[in-house]
Amino acid sequence: MKFTHLATDGAARLGSLETPHGTVRTPAFMPVGTQAAMKGVHWHEVRETGADIVLSNTYHLMLRPGAERIQKLGGLHAFMGWSGPILTDSGGFQVMSLSELRKVDESGVTFRSHVDGAIVALSPERAVEIQRCLGSDIAMQLDECVALPAETAELDRAMRLSLRWAERCKRAFEPDLASGRALFAIVQGGDDVALRRESARALVDMDFQGYAIGGLAVGEPQETMLAMIEEVAPLLPTDRPRYLMGVGTPDDLVKGVARGIDMFDCVLPTRNGRHGLAYTRCGPVNLKNARHQEDPRPLDPESPCRIAREVPRAYLHHLIRAGEALGAMYLSIVNIAYFQTLMQGLRDAIGAGRFADHAAEVTAAWARGDVPPL
Amino acid sequence: MKFTHLATDGAARLGSLETPHGTVRTPAFMPVGTQAAMKGVHWHEVRETGADIVLSNTYHLMLRPGAERIQKLGGLHAFMGWSGPILTDSGGFQVMSLSELRKVDESGVTFRSHVDGAIVALSPERAVEIQRCLGSDIAMQLDECVALPAETAELDRAMRLSLRWAERCKRAFEPDLASGRALFAIVQGGDDVALRRESARALVDMDFQGYAIGGLAVGEPQETMLAMIEEVAPLLPTDRPRYLMGVGTPDDLVKGVARGIDMFDCVLPTRNGRHGLAYTRCGPVNLKNARHQEDPRPLDPESPCRIAREVPRAYLHHLIRAGEALGAMYLSIVNIAYFQTLMQGLRDAIGAGRFADHAAEVTAAWARGDVPPL
Repeated sequence: MKFTHLATDGAARLGSLETPHGTVRTPAFMPVGTQAAMKGVHWHEVRETGADIVLSNTYHLMLRPGAERIQKLGGLHAFMGWSGPILTDSGGFQVMSLSELRKVDESGVTFRSHVDGAIVALSPERAVEIQRCLGSDIAMQLDECVALPAETAELDRAMRLSLRWAERCKRAFEPDLASGRALFAIVQGGDDVALRRESARALVDMDFQGYAIGGLAVGEPQETMLAMIEEVAPLLPTDRPRYLMGVGTPDDLVKGVARGIDMFDCVLPTRNGRHGLAYTRCGPVNLKNARHQEDPRPLDPESPCRIAREVPRAYLHHLIRAGEALGAMYLSIVNIAYFQTLMQGLRDAIGAGRFADHAAEVTAAWARGDVPPL
Repeated sequence: MKFTHLATDGAARLGSLETPHGTVRTPAFMPVGTQAAMKGVHWHEVRETGADIVLSNTYHLMLRPGAERIQKLGGLHAFMGWSGPILTDSGGFQVMSLSELRKVDESGVTFRSHVDGAIVALSPERAVEIQRCLGSDIAMQLDECVALPAETAELDRAMRLSLRWAERCKRAFEPDLASGRALFAIVQGGDDVALRRESARALVDMDFQGYAIGGLAVGEPQETMLAMIEEVAPLLPTDRPRYLMGVGTPDDLVKGVARGIDMFDCVLPTRNGRHGLAYTRCGPVNLKNARHQEDPRPLDPESPCRIAREVPRAYLHHLIRAGEALGAMYLSIVNIAYFQTLMQGLRDAIGAGRFADHAAEVTAAWARGDVPPL
């Protein structure tokens, strides 16, 4: 994997990440295909939104259909029919948030599968092995993510355990380096500045291909999240990509990029799309609202997304109210496309040296709140 | 509307139906978009399967979003974004099968809306008016459809009421004839041969643009359905299209075409697709079955449908088992495409004068039961 740092504008960075399955333009937003599928969206449609890379979840895939089964079928790219880059998380976050009867100790985490009730063990070495089976272009270290608010002692314990697991993941990943696949470390420490700094410095000393900031967007205010990024980002090497995990809203993305983040992932575009919320250049539009029921206008006549540009709001309203799958399908595409258009705008602005002005324009358009009348 | 009868082979007919929104090659299978949407399938994908015409349901659309609202938005074609021909049913069948507190009398049917509980009246004249608002290329008369088995007296009463409603619909539709839109009559009479004959003769005397056979595929054995078609089809004028409503399985389609039917509609391709059943040249494949979990083969390497040709069965199995929307989306397309491929094969065989041989080959391939190993 090769990361080329093309330009900076303030703290914002324009870059290019070469992976075994193609190039990722950064800052990048990664749509999430949890169970080896993007909910309600065809893979060619994901590509057509402008997405370079997608994320899939180790936790779900290890339980069903199973990592070794996917390996036997040629790896995750062949299995699901996405030929571009894939980042997989380590499974750690979702073990903590989704599974029952979990037990964390030095060796790793043990939990009960929500699929068939089996007891499953996930160690740092096994997390690396699973992601090797999947063949993901970017693998993540196993970490322990603590929900906020949390006691300092608990944040400290989890951060130090995550550091030791990072070391073990790095060692386990050594045979994979020749393939061009990459392993990213995850900075932990919750909302504690000293712990965040210590975590970042220790991981940088270990020398990873990229660095994620984890354990944020777990219930804390946006200011806390931004403050943590401001502490951590300057400690990370400028020649490695920086990934803010599980984030976020369009506003989070703009503010994250402004603070030097290169990569993001979030389920918001598809999850909110399924619930009738469309993201547009002029802010979010709740299509469940009765005011759309006779509105022949599209969501945004200037969108690069055909659905946003052409499909009447009245029809989108009808589909969502009638519970038709096509409504969720349409809005998921519209939203992924909006997130990609937003990122392209940010990339262009960094390249042109006008990031701050552009970010202000984007935010002002959201505040105006609707497209001009046709 | 103009129906051109191009060739016959035995009782099977090859034809071409010109509508205000394009030509329908017959025999035709119409996929069903009940609520102005094809469940889980984009409109361009419906078109790509080879479908010339789709069906939408008056009962659902009159309740939500409402016929006058769709008219205000430019009609059903513009509303849902399907530019090809549309056939709408009259609403009668679904009032009988889906609504509560229905009351049928000479004037029409009154029922309680399942959407908002409102009391709604549907008369023959209102059924025509609603379909005018929708702008469907082919409208259906209001009829009363009786579930089988039923007493002869009940079948007789409903058939005669449907005849009187046909007359009223025809009168109400007169202003629409100049637009090129068509109104089809519906032969009723249940499984009673004498009633079926009387219904067909009376409707032919009234002179409609096309004739449907209704009240079948409502629980009776296939032999009963085929026997009724054999009684009715020879009584219908050869220069008008014949539509067998709500039918059916691939086997029903082959046997219906063999008996002179030109048009069919059914929810089977999408409904069974959502439940994990794929129709293929080699018979149905239940993708829920564990035998597919490590099968890298596609459904059919010779299918004209890309998904059937390329997507591994193991992935389809995973999607269906994991409840991922993409599984239903994939199989709905595969199934609509299979039904269209089946119809294209039947049309080609009629044109080539080898319908009986072709039908036997199709049936034999189903019996063999699986695609050849890769």
